[in-house]
Amino acid sequence: MLLKKSIPWGYILGKIKYEILVVACYALAFGLWHENLNLHHITIPLTIPTIIGTIISLLLAFRSNQAYDRWWEARIIWGAIVNDSRSLIRQLQSFINDPEFSVEVSKFTERFAKRQIFWCYSLGQMLRNQDPLGHANEYLSKEDFKFISTHGHVPNALLLLHGRDLKYCLDEGLLNPFQQVELDKTLTRLCDSMGKCERIKKTVFPTTYGLYINFALYLFITLLPFGLTEYVGLVLVPLIILISAAFLFIEKMAIHLQDPFENKPTDTPMTSISRTIEKDLREMIRDYEYVQEKHTASGHKVAEKDFYIL
Amino acid sequence: MLLKKSIPWGYILGKIKYEILVVACYALAFGLWHENLNLHHITIPLTIPTIIGTIISLLLAFRSNQAYDRWWEARIIWGAIVNDSRSLIRQLQSFINDPEFSVEVSKFTERFAKRQIFWCYSLGQMLRNQDPLGHANEYLSKEDFKFISTHGHVPNALLLLHGRDLKYCLDEGLLNPFQQVELDKTLTRLCDSMGKCERIKKTVFPTTYGLYINFALYLFITLLPFGLTEYVGLVLVPLIILISAAFLFIEKMAIHLQDPFENKPTDTPMTSISRTIEKDLREMIRDYEYVQEKHTASGHKVAEKDFYIL
Amino acid sequence: MLLKKSIPWGYILGKIKYEILVVACYALAFGLWHENLNLHHITIPLTIPTIIGTIISLLLAFRSNQAYDRWWEARIIWGAIVNDSRSLIRQLQSFINDPEFSVEVSKFTERFAKRQIFWCYSLGQMLRNQDPLGHANEYLSKEDFKFISTHGHVPNALLLLHGRDLKYCLDEGLLNPFQQVELDKTLTRLCDSMGKCERIKKTVFPTTYGLYINFALYLFITLLPFGLTEYVGLVLVPLIILISAAFLFIEKMAIHLQDPFENKPTDTPMTSISRTIEKDLREMIRDYEYVQEKHTASGHKVAEKDFYIL
Amino acid sequence: MLLKKSIPWGYILGKIKYEILVVACYALAFGLWHENLNLHHITIPLTIPTIIGTIISLLLAFRSNQAYDRWWEARIIWGAIVNDSRSLIRQLQSFINDPEFSVEVSKFTERFAKRQIFWCYSLGQMLRNQDPLGHANEYLSKEDFKFISTHGHVPNALLLLHGRDLKYCLDEGLLNPFQQVELDKTLTRLCDSMGKCERIKKTVFPTTYGLYINFALYLFITLLPFGLTEYVGLVLVPLIILISAAFLFIEKMAIHLQDPFENKPTDTPMTSISRTIEKDLREMIRDYEYVQEKHTASGHKVAEKDFYIL
Amino acid sequence: MLLKKSIPWGYILGKIKYEILVVACYALAFGLWHENLNLHHITIPLTIPTIIGTIISLLLAFRSNQAYDRWWEARIIWGAIVNDSRSLIRQLQSFINDPEFSVEVSKFTERFAKRQIFWCYSLGQMLRNQDPLGHANEYLSKEDFKFISTHGHVPNALLLLHGRDLKYCLDEGLLNPFQQVELDKTLTRLCDSMGKCERIKKTVFPTTYGLYINFALYLFITLLPFGLTEYVGLVLVPLIILISAAFLFIEKMAIHLQDPFENKPTDTPMTSISRTIEKDLREMIRDYEYVQEKHTASGHKVAEKDFYIL
Repeated sequence: MLLKKSIPWGYILGKIKYEILVVACYALAFGLWHENLNLHHITIPLTIPTIIGTIISLLLAFRSNQAYDRWWEARIIWGAIVNDSRSLIRQLQSFINDPEFSVEVSKFTERFAKRQIFWCYSLGQMLRNQDPLGHANEYLSKEDFKFISTHGHVPNALLLLHGRDLKYCLDEGLLNPFQQVELDKTLTRLCDSMGKCERIKKTVFPTTYGLYINFALYLFITLLPFGLTEYVGLVLVPLIILISAAFLFIEKMAIHLQDPFENKPTDTPMTSISRTIEKDLREMIRDYEYVQEKHTASGHKVAEKDFYIL
Repeated sequence: MLLKKSIPWGYILGKIKYEILVVACYALAFGLWHENLNLHHITIPLTIPTIIGTIISLLLAFRSNQAYDRWWEARIIWGAIVNDSRSLIRQLQSFINDPEFSVEVSKFTERFAKRQIFWCYSLGQMLRNQDPLGHANEYLSKEDFKFISTHGHVPNALLLLHGRDLKYCLDEGLLNPFQQVELDKTLTRLCDSMGKCERIKKTVFPTTYGLYINFALYLFITLLPFGLTEYVGLVLVPLIILISAAFLFIEKMAIHLQDPFENKPTDTPMTSISRTIEKDLREMIRDYEYVQEKHTASGHKVAEKDFYIL
Repeated sequence: MLLKKSIPWGYILGKIKYEILVVACYALAFGLWHENLNLHHITIPLTIPTIIGTIISLLLAFRSNQAYDRWWEARIIWGAIVNDSRSLIRQLQSFINDPEFSVEVSKFTERFAKRQIFWCYSLGQMLRNQDPLGHANEYLSKEDFKFISTHGHVPNALLLLHGRDLKYCLDEGLLNPFQQVELDKTLTRLCDSMGKCERIKKTVFPTTYGLYINFALYLFITLLPFGLTEYVGLVLVPLIILISAAFLFIEKMAIHLQDPFENKPTDTPMTSISRTIEKDLREMIRDYEYVQEKHTASGHKVAEKDFYIL
Repeated sequence: MLLKKSIPWGYILGKIKYEILVVACYALAFGLWHENLNLHHITIPLTIPTIIGTIISLLLAFRSNQAYDRWWEARIIWGAIVNDSRSLIRQLQSFINDPEFSVEVSKFTERFAKRQIFWCYSLGQMLRNQDPLGHANEYLSKEDFKFISTHGHVPNALLLLHGRDLKYCLDEGLLNPFQQVELDKTLTRLCDSMGKCERIKKTVFPTTYGLYINFALYLFITLLPFGLTEYVGLVLVPLIILISAAFLFIEKMAIHLQDPFENKPTDTPMTSISRTIEKDLREMIRDYEYVQEKHTASGHKVAEKDFYIL
Repeated sequence: MLLKKSIPWGYILGKIKYEILVVACYALAFGLWHENLNLHHITIPLTIPTIIGTIISLLLAFRSNQAYDRWWEARIIWGAIVNDSRSLIRQLQSFINDPEFSVEVSKFTERFAKRQIFWCYSLGQMLRNQDPLGHANEYLSKEDFKFISTHGHVPNALLLLHGRDLKYCLDEGLLNPFQQVELDKTLTRLCDSMGKCERIKKTVFPTTYGLYINFALYLFITLLPFGLTEYVGLVLVPLIILISAAFLFIEKMAIHLQDPFENKPTDTPMTSISRTIEKDLREMIRDYEYVQEKHTASGHKVAEKDFYIL
């Protein structure tokens, strides 16, 4: 979850502490035993690490780009979910044919909107491998709950119920045929967003790229001191550590950014977005009680202090 | 707000003055005490800063790209708002079934167009964390104003009113069912644009990237003089400052570009675009009075001299 | 306007002649007074200009990319205008219900097609800040001309007239409701293309980037001779000029490419595209007279020799 | 098929073993006969391999990008197939007019859903150059099987059958005209996904680029030892091998990633995705038997241990 | 036309033979007369060519990217043509209201499908500047042929005929209004694909970029030997040639890739794709005779041996 807050340096350093330790040991060992061993005869021109450094830089840039694109795409998908949730309820309200403002239609719209709110929470929970049925009873009618509890894929089952309700409206004359089809298009867009999230969640970033970058990185770090033998001593150890850290950090950041649905500090703020949707949709169906209470209690509260920002 | 005007160098330098000051002190200190301390024994081959320079360059290019993409996407969204506002009114005018050119229909169209104009201003104000209800009474009827003032999300409430008006048209036979659905699609596109703006506004650029670039940048600047010990003296200080400035500038520019809705000189010219929409829409509904006056007085004037261009 | 023709080197050199002159003077002065001044004590390792050169290269690549993208997007938009103009007339012809092949319908289609042709010319003129009403009387009926002359935004007014004609068709039973809505979608796409052109036209490329690249470029050129002091003399001057030219050229090209609607040799060939549209549309409405004459006289001829190709 | 599992280093090294062998022989031969031949008079500055290394790095980055884009696009297409399969059945269920819940309609929906499931398997098989009719009898009725067996392009024939069934529904009054057209749009999207897969499958990555990178790579490796003649001996051989491996690996990875439908470990997990679709669709048509058995037996099981992850 | 086949090295070398010859002469002349002239006093540090090499690398990467994007977009467009051709016929077959399976409707569908097949061939011919009417009589009825022969833009005229046929179907009650509009959308997509091909065909890659890269490339090659004066002799000539070849190759590849409709070995395989469309469409209309004969004779055979692969 990305929020604007200062990040403790400890948290950042914590991510690469083992790697840095290994590098420090290597540099120290190199510096200490350099004189005693015949290593100082083996010297490598600094151009060699530079060439490797160039290719690592390009690969890290490539990886950062792909990781950022995955993360940004995840955010775009959830933005589309916000938009389509709002459009769905707006369309329902402005399409439904209810000249007498009957209580049934009002109840129907409310049930529909709450189901849509729950769809968002449920999708978020599913993507984070948590119980997609959590707090379901606060949002769903008993029949709906019974229906979805027989399904393995909860958000998909909720869309089925949406579709069933639209059919009911058509049969009852609450919607005309064009309006049913138009509302169904919005459901299709929600279904697309759901599938896109699952795609990002389930697709592994090509593992060999990561492995390869590691290989090149450690090759680079291993060769570096051989190119600096003339400067060996006190200075070598911090120098190697700092340069290694500069490269290792970028890799870690890309790794953390590339999986936006893994319940990590850097993931897409799905719960927070779902709460925004809840607030907007309840406002649209004029659920004033909720709007008043919304700052005091909510089933899906996030313990924000558990999350850092990346 | 980006306009073609010359930018005072002072404004640009102002952005990095503290960083430059720190760098200057460091370079001066290094140059002065270099002889007295045993620093001149510690020399680093210039290749080391070069490697770090390469990776910083790639990261700055990556960051510039992402920042530019955010800024450009914001501009594209507002371009789409212009297009959809025009299309909305054109569709309304060419769809509405009014063979007798009645005054009511004319009034209705005007109210609709003014509400759309206000939607643009209101969205812009909301994105800049300013009062989204400013000047509402100039554009909205009393009932509309009452309705939206009970909503937390003003632009969304305006779209609800649009949808309600389309429903009214369908019920009165002013629009046929296809036309209602088609106009609703335009509302959905406006809703999408609104949500996209909010996404850009609310999504923080991964903070650790910025932090990391800072780390690499200062590592680079710190190491640089050690690589230049043979040239120490008068020349070192301005050299370090100029090179540091070259890198620091790019970072600052990216930072300023990446948040296009923050009421900064570099943001998307939302007020200016909204005024263009107002002019075009008023022309479409043949509001000649406004068109004549438009150069003399306007509720949403921008104090342009307060904004520089980035 | 980009056409395949050889470009005189003079034209290209003309773009950077002042910059090159300044650089030449600087290099010459440096070469001449180098011995007399104590400059030859101040030497800078060539690695420093190399680092700056790397970052300039990346920034120039970034800028070239963005400029190319703007230019290419402008071309894509005008390609879409071609497609939508053809589709508009094809749809009109295959939708309109005219079993008796009446003369009125034929006249109506012709008027519609000619208005669409003029829309293209008019949009091109407006984007180049030229009179959008030029040659209007050749394409528009008197009423249409009267209508648009009261509008500030001519192409938008033409789309209004298109929409009005579609409404007329619906009322007269020439189109059924689906067909009207479908044709209106094509108008919406044309409206989108129009707005996208205006977006590119009105959005300034972030000025500070350009300014910054200039700063880094001149820093690079200024430092370069200090790194070459050992090679000073006859060779230095042409060397500095050639290297500077290599960098300055790229910048100039990007600047010229980034504004595709500025009536410069490199802009989008809007008049030429509009003429293609005119030819195709007149062929579709079987205007044989025009097709025969098209090589002899045309209102919108381009004085091609005035344009070079970039 | 990309799954999260550790990859044996042997597998990775196996991909470049012949190249590495050749490089090792060359480096060894160079090292051994260096003294005897007059090669040590021929020395090349290391800057030359560096320049070639820079351009190779950029080309490898370009190639990695394109290969990744192909692979990711393939994944996006199959994600869209998942979404459209779900939407197709949801639409069918919520559109079909069956107030009496007749057995025929239920059978019809089941047949339709199973045909869609088979479409996915069949497309996957076709793309891998395997029998697209495998296990067809488990999913298709006899008439359907007879129909598609006379067609060369099995998935396209299945879409024809889908279309025929929708027509049947329209004729029988089970769907209204809008609903038929809307369901046909989903078929069109499936047809698009199918064609996009075939495009990626059939389009060769420009061969000369690969050839060229090879040329530049071996030029680089050949020149490298000449630049290191001062350091010749024990160190040269492993150094050349490691640097060559660093470059050769990236090339191999790009080559393996760029063809995502070639039945290799790195391809798109089409069978696995198809099984997900089968599970979801059977759940939607409430085929409880299958859902219970799904972990015990399946016609399209994948022998996962045969696949490594790249 | 890109097919998987081995490419003779001669073909590849043939593309840069003149450039290589010039470079060889220059290197040889430099090597021979180096001693006699006072050139060996003029030496340039190798860093200068390296800086130019970096910027050339970036520009070549930029150019390769743009050229690849054009080529890949062309391929995507033709992939869309395949999809839309299949969808068009599938839609026609599943929409048309023909309960008695009359011979006329069957003939009508066949004529429509053949016209679509010919549209593909015709578009390909037009883009390659060949006769767009070739083999027209094999696919079109006499009236259709007569109609299109009066048009300058043959594929556009074919779309007009498609539209006319759809209108005929509407009038005869073979299609309902929604179906006509839906089929017309497919025509609009085909029209868009056609226009996109023309856009790529007619838009010149900014010529000055190519010119500039040439300038920088020859500057680099000219300066290179001055940086190698210490190593002059036998080694210099092949070294210069190889490095020059490495850069010249990339440029040539980009140039050949950037124009995908120029009847060159590297262009989009339009004839081959059209034949695939013909096979699929004939299968859909159950034209068994053709399917049997398809391997023996075809009007649009490609003399494949004339094409190499790039």
